[in-house]
Amino acid sequence: MQVEPGILLREIHTPDDLKNFSKDQLVQICDELRQFIIDHVSVFGGHFGAGLGVVELTVALHYVLNTPDDQLIWDVGHQAYGHKILTGRREAFHTNRLYKGLSGFPKRKESPYDAFGVGHSSTSISAALGMAMASKYKGADKRQHVAVIGDGAMTGGMAFEAMNHAGVSDTNLLIILNDNCMSIDPNVGALKDYLTDITTSHTYNKVRDEVWSLLGKISKFGFSAQEVVSKVEGAIKSTLLKQSNLFESLNLRYFGPVDGHDVNHLVEVLNDLKDIPGPKILHCITVKGKGFAPAEKDQTKWHAPGKFDKITGEIAKKIPTSPQAPKYQDVFGHTLVELAGENEKIVGVTPAMPSGSSMNFMMKAYPDRSFDVGIAEQHAVTFSAGLATQGLTPFCNIYSTFMQRAYDQVIHDVCLQDLPVVFCLDRAGFAGADGPTHHGAYDLAFFRCLPNLVVSAPMNEEELRNLMFSASEHNGPYSIRYPRGQGVMPDWKQALRKIPTGQGRIVREGKDLAILSIGHVGNYAVEAAEKLQKNGIDMAHYDMRFVKPLDESMLHEVFTKFDKVITIEDGCLMGGFGSAILEWMVDHNYQSRVKRLGIPDEVIEHGEQIELHRECGFDPEGIVSAAKEMLGTTVSENLKF
Amino acid sequence: MQVEPGILLREIHTPDDLKNFSKDQLVQICDELRQFIIDHVSVFGGHFGAGLGVVELTVALHYVLNTPDDQLIWDVGHQAYGHKILTGRREAFHTNRLYKGLSGFPKRKESPYDAFGVGHSSTSISAALGMAMASKYKGADKRQHVAVIGDGAMTGGMAFEAMNHAGVSDTNLLIILNDNCMSIDPNVGALKDYLTDITTSHTYNKVRDEVWSLLGKISKFGFSAQEVVSKVEGAIKSTLLKQSNLFESLNLRYFGPVDGHDVNHLVEVLNDLKDIPGPKILHCITVKGKGFAPAEKDQTKWHAPGKFDKITGEIAKKIPTSPQAPKYQDVFGHTLVELAGENEKIVGVTPAMPSGSSMNFMMKAYPDRSFDVGIAEQHAVTFSAGLATQGLTPFCNIYSTFMQRAYDQVIHDVCLQDLPVVFCLDRAGFAGADGPTHHGAYDLAFFRCLPNLVVSAPMNEEELRNLMFSASEHNGPYSIRYPRGQGVMPDWKQALRKIPTGQGRIVREGKDLAILSIGHVGNYAVEAAEKLQKNGIDMAHYDMRFVKPLDESMLHEVFTKFDKVITIEDGCLMGGFGSAILEWMVDHNYQSRVKRLGIPDEVIEHGEQIELHRECGFDPEGIVSAAKEMLGTTVSENLKF
Repeated sequence: MQVEPGILLREIHTPDDLKNFSKDQLVQICDELRQFIIDHVSVFGGHFGAGLGVVELTVALHYVLNTPDDQLIWDVGHQAYGHKILTGRREAFHTNRLYKGLSGFPKRKESPYDAFGVGHSSTSISAALGMAMASKYKGADKRQHVAVIGDGAMTGGMAFEAMNHAGVSDTNLLIILNDNCMSIDPNVGALKDYLTDITTSHTYNKVRDEVWSLLGKISKFGFSAQEVVSKVEGAIKSTLLKQSNLFESLNLRYFGPVDGHDVNHLVEVLNDLKDIPGPKILHCITVKGKGFAPAEKDQTKWHAPGKFDKITGEIAKKIPTSPQAPKYQDVFGHTLVELAGENEKIVGVTPAMPSGSSMNFMMKAYPDRSFDVGIAEQHAVTFSAGLATQGLTPFCNIYSTFMQRAYDQVIHDVCLQDLPVVFCLDRAGFAGADGPTHHGAYDLAFFRCLPNLVVSAPMNEEELRNLMFSASEHNGPYSIRYPRGQGVMPDWKQALRKIPTGQGRIVREGKDLAILSIGHVGNYAVEAAEKLQKNGIDMAHYDMRFVKPLDESMLHEVFTKFDKVITIEDGCLMGGFGSAILEWMVDHNYQSRVKRLGIPDEVIEHGEQIELHRECGFDPEGIVSAAKEMLGTTVSENLKF
Repeated sequence: MQVEPGILLREIHTPDDLKNFSKDQLVQICDELRQFIIDHVSVFGGHFGAGLGVVELTVALHYVLNTPDDQLIWDVGHQAYGHKILTGRREAFHTNRLYKGLSGFPKRKESPYDAFGVGHSSTSISAALGMAMASKYKGADKRQHVAVIGDGAMTGGMAFEAMNHAGVSDTNLLIILNDNCMSIDPNVGALKDYLTDITTSHTYNKVRDEVWSLLGKISKFGFSAQEVVSKVEGAIKSTLLKQSNLFESLNLRYFGPVDGHDVNHLVEVLNDLKDIPGPKILHCITVKGKGFAPAEKDQTKWHAPGKFDKITGEIAKKIPTSPQAPKYQDVFGHTLVELAGENEKIVGVTPAMPSGSSMNFMMKAYPDRSFDVGIAEQHAVTFSAGLATQGLTPFCNIYSTFMQRAYDQVIHDVCLQDLPVVFCLDRAGFAGADGPTHHGAYDLAFFRCLPNLVVSAPMNEEELRNLMFSASEHNGPYSIRYPRGQGVMPDWKQALRKIPTGQGRIVREGKDLAILSIGHVGNYAVEAAEKLQKNGIDMAHYDMRFVKPLDESMLHEVFTKFDKVITIEDGCLMGGFGSAILEWMVDHNYQSRVKRLGIPDEVIEHGEQIELHRECGFDPEGIVSAAKEMLGTTVSENLKF
């Protein structure tokens, strides 16, 4: 099903087509683009509010800039639907976020208009500065380099690092601060307050009032000193808003704030800025969800609402598989509140993901024991380490893919000091439609090499709960990874039981071969074992639960009993769980045949999780095939000893 | 040999002893502490300039604070010698940085006065904020939490993340900005300029002059408007320095700048600040190397000068092992200049390590093609990615241990986009005296799991050069890791040769067993093979050069010929090079016995590199033992099949 574009939008296949329209047609083009996005997302789902918020900015930028020669980078990128629609991808847009379809984020392989692949926050200024510096080196003086970055992403430390460098560069860099006071959840932190302050001129008003009051008292001159003040005001205002502005402190020329929904004014401003050399920042005020009333009203809910009725604003409910198993994230959220009720040492930390991680349950139940630190994974981890030094037990919830950004802090501040921080890695394994930038593919490999760190993954909701409970009583760093989406246990809320660190469990006895699983994909192994049973193959199944420490007595049993072993993980094969099993096996002089199933050493694109698991050969059918192949194969020609 | 303390210092065993002295004795105590540090480092070596710069601050802090209950955190930590000397470690200080001795950095295990382990930059504010938040939660209202952070470390993004959070917290947090304009090398970036601007009041003067000039023109009032201005000035000055200050923008109350070498004034200011609630920042101006003239003059050279003559300031030359092999870092520096001379696409990027990495050779030869981006590893990597999108070939040099901080950027911005950035990881493997925070133990494990990335390590200088040359012509991400210290080839500057990606080389033929090495420790294998030869054992040696891709034809040869194989790496055994070999072996149905040598799964402390290699059993003797054990052992009891 295709969504129909409006009468102007249908003429636009590239930004050059856009430039053929007159300036007074831009408002209508914005309306049509906005409507196209609403029509599209209501039918197909996807990111919503962020895209609506930058419709005017998108049109103005492509109207003014000479893309793709000029370089335009959308930080995070989930707001770039309008950009994609204007740059040759309108007709393919119904494939957005589908397996083998368009990516939901800008992607270099997809289009020359996507100057830089994005997904994680706060990268755009660094990338744009690199491009600008390259242009300078090449003598391309007129080329423009624009990073569009939200106020949420601006709190990510690397944005500051980039501004610190940009401020002393002599490059054509324009940073557009898309200030809507939101990440997925409302923004937090001092920067947000500061931007509100600029926007509403609080500081300026305060200074003016102070000077005014001071001069009002000077009567000896016999004239209204306040007349003088009106002259002084101009000087103070310009200096305060220009020279002493936070961004001006970093030597970035500051312009704004401007209304990010006035497309004609934006075009004027952007045209002016093209001629001003050096690094500069334009502060745009926008509304997330602009133009769709329900989305303006509840911005978190409408960040990525799924399909909805565009007339009533009713969001389509997913048809429940009855009875419904909960999302892992909700099991995390409820269990954390439950544990915190029993153990006053427990506190929660999230970097700007209260709703995504369900940390908001804890924030509601124990507001003084929960911390949303903003988009700041590095800080979240070391802040947690600081809490832990004082005898508290922080549960620091960070998506697997975003944990990459706090890797040094996990090593340097938590593991080397052996501090009891519990890391909960949500969205581990394939993220699904968000694609490679968001896949949690590497965490088992990059975590298991760290000393002192327990590395675990539950196969179901009950195990998640029990691992969380066990982690809260463990005196050292502990990680628990679990996937996006639903578990398998409608009746998940069982009494908490402690799992001894490093203890696996037997899911199924068998005699022909064994499968060792870690995490949720163990459920695929259950399915596969049943299918194999029908084919007369008896596969034993061990849910290891821990990648580190490994259950050594269980492994002695496995490798003593079985000469054919499969390992399965929703993670990279290089250095992951299967590799840990091989290390143990070889170190202990066992020589079984081992087939490792998991994510191969390549970039896996987006799609439904099961589609990607199938592509990588570790869905239930993949396991069945691997088992049959293993049993069908006798000693290979390479085999010696 | 013990260094003698002065007559007051010798009475100080804990900060409580310090508090027994009167305020007018503090200057002498500072003098004695400074002299002790000079005496100590001149004899034993170690970090120097940073410690001298904070002598007064250290004395003032311990005089005013109630440590260890009050929490004092030294960012980076190489300036904490004075702190260690005042907190019960003076008499053990001659073991500083020696194997089994005191750590050169604050370390929780070592002393309750070391509130947080440090080493990497920019962590202190996050940690202190965590502690302060915990105190608030516990109702410890009077407790102080102090982070001392340099202006260099302040450019690291996580410091900004932490300030953004701190600004909206209601905690007893004091950030002391130790502003000396230096990291190891002079600081760069807009923040440095801004701090200089505050210190010298440039902005204030500019605003004042503008208002002055404006008012000077108002004549219609018939009086000297400049009289009014003198009143206005006060208001402008206070608002500019307070309300519109960069730190005040983040809602941190700003105090200063103050002279960081006036111990009595510091004591007064710190006492005052204790009573001011909420997060605040004190801007201290200090001089790195203060009180030792040569160190004040050449601050980079005197960051960690080694031993020296404290009278003449002459730095002791290391006795050369004749003929002298160069440091790997210098081979990198010279070769980069050589390559850049032939290939105009090549540019260099360093995050604040021009002298440590020898990137300064490139900066001198090609200033417009070299970028020192400040302490900002994340930005360095994504900035490099931006450069690469424009057809340039950046050589981004980051110490192995600091690469941990840019891990997400390597994945998200370089590997997923398959961009030709060359990562050169200096100080890979054990860092030596700097200890666990600086060991480059994990990079082979955390890099080899990333798609598209070539992972290589040279065994000697010639290979480093050839790998760099090969990397510069490779169309994708490429990493080269090499250790701290000297190589093995006095005659290292051979003509450049391209090494095909993934091609290993045979160092020595053999028949009894084989050793596969990666990187510089391959030289240990050479030594070991010679020793074994004398014992009648004939060990083949393969220098793999690449962890990824592996040389598969070489591995087929190895596993066909040898049923006993040793692997050796200066890196973690969990998931590292040896693990890659096991994966390949099992995937290809070989079943040789493999003994992996490398860094075990625990925190290895500081010491000379060879001491640590010995401790971990992969020095030449360790290899000999492993080989003998392997040959002595026949089929173990576990062995089946």
